[in-house]
Amino acid sequence: MSDIRELSFNDTNSSTKSLGEQTSERIVRLIIDSDWKSGDKLPNEYDLASSLNVGRSTIREAIKALVSRNVLEIRRGAGTFISDKCGIADDPLGLTFVKDKYKLALDLLEVRFMIEPSIASIAATKATDEEIEQMSNLCDEIESLILKDEPYLEKDIEFHTAIAKSSKNLVVVNLIPIINRSITIFIDITNRKLRNETIETHREILNSIKEHNANGAHDAMLLHLVYNRRNIASIIGKERNY
Amino acid sequence: MSDIRELSFNDTNSSTKSLGEQTSERIVRLIIDSDWKSGDKLPNEYDLASSLNVGRSTIREAIKALVSRNVLEIRRGAGTFISDKCGIADDPLGLTFVKDKYKLALDLLEVRFMIEPSIASIAATKATDEEIEQMSNLCDEIESLILKDEPYLEKDIEFHTAIAKSSKNLVVVNLIPIINRSITIFIDITNRKLRNETIETHREILNSIKEHNANGAHDAMLLHLVYNRRNIASIIGKERNY
Repeated sequence: MSDIRELSFNDTNSSTKSLGEQTSERIVRLIIDSDWKSGDKLPNEYDLASSLNVGRSTIREAIKALVSRNVLEIRRGAGTFISDKCGIADDPLGLTFVKDKYKLALDLLEVRFMIEPSIASIAATKATDEEIEQMSNLCDEIESLILKDEPYLEKDIEFHTAIAKSSKNLVVVNLIPIINRSITIFIDITNRKLRNETIETHREILNSIKEHNANGAHDAMLLHLVYNRRNIASIIGKERNY
Repeated sequence: MSDIRELSFNDTNSSTKSLGEQTSERIVRLIIDSDWKSGDKLPNEYDLASSLNVGRSTIREAIKALVSRNVLEIRRGAGTFISDKCGIADDPLGLTFVKDKYKLALDLLEVRFMIEPSIASIAATKATDEEIEQMSNLCDEIESLILKDEPYLEKDIEFHTAIAKSSKNLVVVNLIPIINRSITIFIDITNRKLRNETIETHREILNSIKEHNANGAHDAMLLHLVYNRRNIASIIGKERNY
């Protein structure tokens, strides 16, 4: 007897689902079972329709729904592919519907305080040499972008995601980019003030992970977040006075 | 000049979006600006088409996409309503695509260890009398379900969500139910073993929050999670031997 459940996320009410929705779920199952990865091409409509034994209009409806869910992407003239967004919604936490964006930015950062120092210390114990090299390269790239006064946000998110990845926690690796990107969607924290602090604290985090020093990585990440929170608080303070 | 951005989640590439996708975004904006809440009815297709100045087939396409995103729900014969899922995806973190469900369950729990004790201690300092009363009722209901040997999972998630809500962190209140439900989608942790431990640790968490004892709430939540992790580890250990 198995305690593990081979269910998808809304199997419970499958009787109330439309044929299109059921077909979406079957395509998801097909992707998992076939081990298709992001960038792989989906079979064409005709082949899918005959292998799933439904009409082509049902396939089209199912594909549209999976595009909305970021599972698939349509490249015009080329076909339908597994999306590199891995089925992670654009706004998975429904933050679009939060009204107070200032409070939201601080709450997102509060979650980073809960997760990222722990993750940095786990990373310090688990990161492989290849992973450390990748973090080191990202650290160099960010430093060089900052010194050239160019936008470094994408690389910054990649750096934090690389740390999450090396912690080997499958949930955090998806969660960190969502949270870190959400903050910057609502508040422009890429102002010039934090340039030196970012370079220094990133370097400290990296060095601690390199030395497999768990407490060092924890504390360096905490310091990094403290600078970020003070910066956001000062932006918000300024805004609220105007 | 404002540092805050009034952007939605994928505004950056709006030029590459189809009319249907653009219309979805405009409906989302309309929902936010009109302050429509879950359960409110959306204007009919005809009125939406004329107020957004697009065709009815475009409206239908946009509505379908928003149904997939859990922003809207269609009730047959009644119309289209704002979904009570608040736009939070069924599987927001893309966990369907993780292969090793055992590891996933432990990783989800690891994230609960990072978040929930901190949240419990914040709740202890911020919970209002009404919120404490609601938690207390949930605690009673769970206890009575456990003693009658009935399923208590939904109430359990509600209890942890009520604690998250009383912490006033807007992100955590959405994140906790996602993580707690995901664990139970993959692993059946509602076996009889944890009945007494659940009743006792829930009661301890509640009492600490009632007394506004932050450390007490932190530690009681930690203990609760320790029992859960040991239970999951024993289920997994058993599974892996078979």
